[in-house]
Amino acid sequence: MPGLAVEVIDIDDPQDPRVEDFRDLNSVDRRPDLPVLPGGRPGRGLVIAEGVLVAQRMIASRFSAHAFLGVDKRLEELDDDLRDPSLSGVPFFRASAEVMAEIVGFHLNRGVLAVARRPEVLSVSDILETARTVAILEGVNDHENIGSIFRNAAGLGVDAVLFGQGCADPLYRRCVRVSMGHALLVPFAKFDEWPRGLDELRSRDFRLVSMTPDPDAVTLAEAVDAEKVGFLVGAEGPGLTASAMAATDVKARIPMSRGTDSLNVATAAAVAFYERVRSGTMGE
Amino acid sequence: MPGLAVEVIDIDDPQDPRVEDFRDLNSVDRRPDLPVLPGGRPGRGLVIAEGVLVAQRMIASRFSAHAFLGVDKRLEELDDDLRDPSLSGVPFFRASAEVMAEIVGFHLNRGVLAVARRPEVLSVSDILETARTVAILEGVNDHENIGSIFRNAAGLGVDAVLFGQGCADPLYRRCVRVSMGHALLVPFAKFDEWPRGLDELRSRDFRLVSMTPDPDAVTLAEAVDAEKVGFLVGAEGPGLTASAMAATDVKARIPMSRGTDSLNVATAAAVAFYERVRSGTMGE
Repeated sequence: MPGLAVEVIDIDDPQDPRVEDFRDLNSVDRRPDLPVLPGGRPGRGLVIAEGVLVAQRMIASRFSAHAFLGVDKRLEELDDDLRDPSLSGVPFFRASAEVMAEIVGFHLNRGVLAVARRPEVLSVSDILETARTVAILEGVNDHENIGSIFRNAAGLGVDAVLFGQGCADPLYRRCVRVSMGHALLVPFAKFDEWPRGLDELRSRDFRLVSMTPDPDAVTLAEAVDAEKVGFLVGAEGPGLTASAMAATDVKARIPMSRGTDSLNVATAAAVAFYERVRSGTMGE
Repeated sequence: MPGLAVEVIDIDDPQDPRVEDFRDLNSVDRRPDLPVLPGGRPGRGLVIAEGVLVAQRMIASRFSAHAFLGVDKRLEELDDDLRDPSLSGVPFFRASAEVMAEIVGFHLNRGVLAVARRPEVLSVSDILETARTVAILEGVNDHENIGSIFRNAAGLGVDAVLFGQGCADPLYRRCVRVSMGHALLVPFAKFDEWPRGLDELRSRDFRLVSMTPDPDAVTLAEAVDAEKVGFLVGAEGPGLTASAMAATDVKARIPMSRGTDSLNVATAAAVAFYERVRSGTMGE
């Protein structure tokens, strides 16, 4: 294939050691996206992009894909993207759907995978240099919810996602997939100290808004009118901890939405992001 | 257990014919929630509620549970609810988690199921008698998205969900589960003719709003100011058909949200529902 930056390598044997990074994607203890835990299990911490769209977003992101595995049809669909000079010499392992299924451990409808190592982590300070609207998560330990929050952040112009205590890893395969690849594109960082790290936002003139179903809270529309805003959301059920909530400037509720199970956490976040966009764009 | 309306019956044999309605929940062709298809497969069309919360909502709904299957712990948790006189004589089949797993075909974490027959279907006209805000779905064939739309409708005060062409069954188990039981509580109906059935909404002074990523559409905030509003949403990807869109009064977009994959359909619907609540409650 003239013009491709990647090197296409055919794989016929599912045991081929060159495709090790794509093996046993669903295995609890061998999956390649298991994070490297401090002093704990020796995860490899690889980041897996599934499907054409998410692979494209990985190529466009700060994550450098170091290998692809896919069927011929997907290789063709990615033809334009795989000409990117940054992929020069990166292997595209081409396999049949059957061989691919044996490697990854199940039949993968999406037909293509890309894998990258984790880049340098960003710091909260790095992100706050330019951000005007950020989402701040506490105790959100469901990969699907985190993925949806990244997708909603991207769709509604939120600049970054910041992680407080008790959140799941945003670079798990399921999270990256549900985010439609936006977990690779929207910057994120983790607070070193929680909730004390919120002080940095306050010192940079962010208004910190706790999302809560509390009927005594102000409505969301009354809370977002500030140049910089950080929305805090907690896990469904328990919500934000008292100490996190105490560290914020204002509690805001979504009108009508009563009870802790009334909206999914990613949906509540989307509504908050929308209110922010709405307030900023009414004159557009 | 004095005071219970249900009759507790212990089940030790997974083959017991009395628990037939709970058997093989995941089976493609035997699952009890398979709808009765006109001239097609003989589905039983039963409605399954999973878990304490959804079972409680079924008891509170127009769906009459005719049997329960659960472990002893869940029987205790439902103690108050199972005193409801409407459940007089309804069997509560009590089983161990192991026996239950053999009956349903997998280990069910939620530990309790309720089953109901489908009640009489509501007509669009019935629903429009009192509704002020309705969601109208076209081509939404993903059970999880439909379930989320019901949950969001309940959380944000939408009166009903109306189904145009090409939508999946809102009473599938997965849909009921994802809706947190709100698919049993929020009224819904299916249009007989599509999109011609929309005429009835127009004759009742509904403003019909198409949700679209089209940058030429007005913003959502500009579209919802009417006494009665129907929001039309289409499937992710294709969106609404041209004929459905042509039958509406105004096209509305969510600002910033560009491209067809930027927001999930249920999230886009939630944002629209929120805008409606916001407009109606700003003076509260």
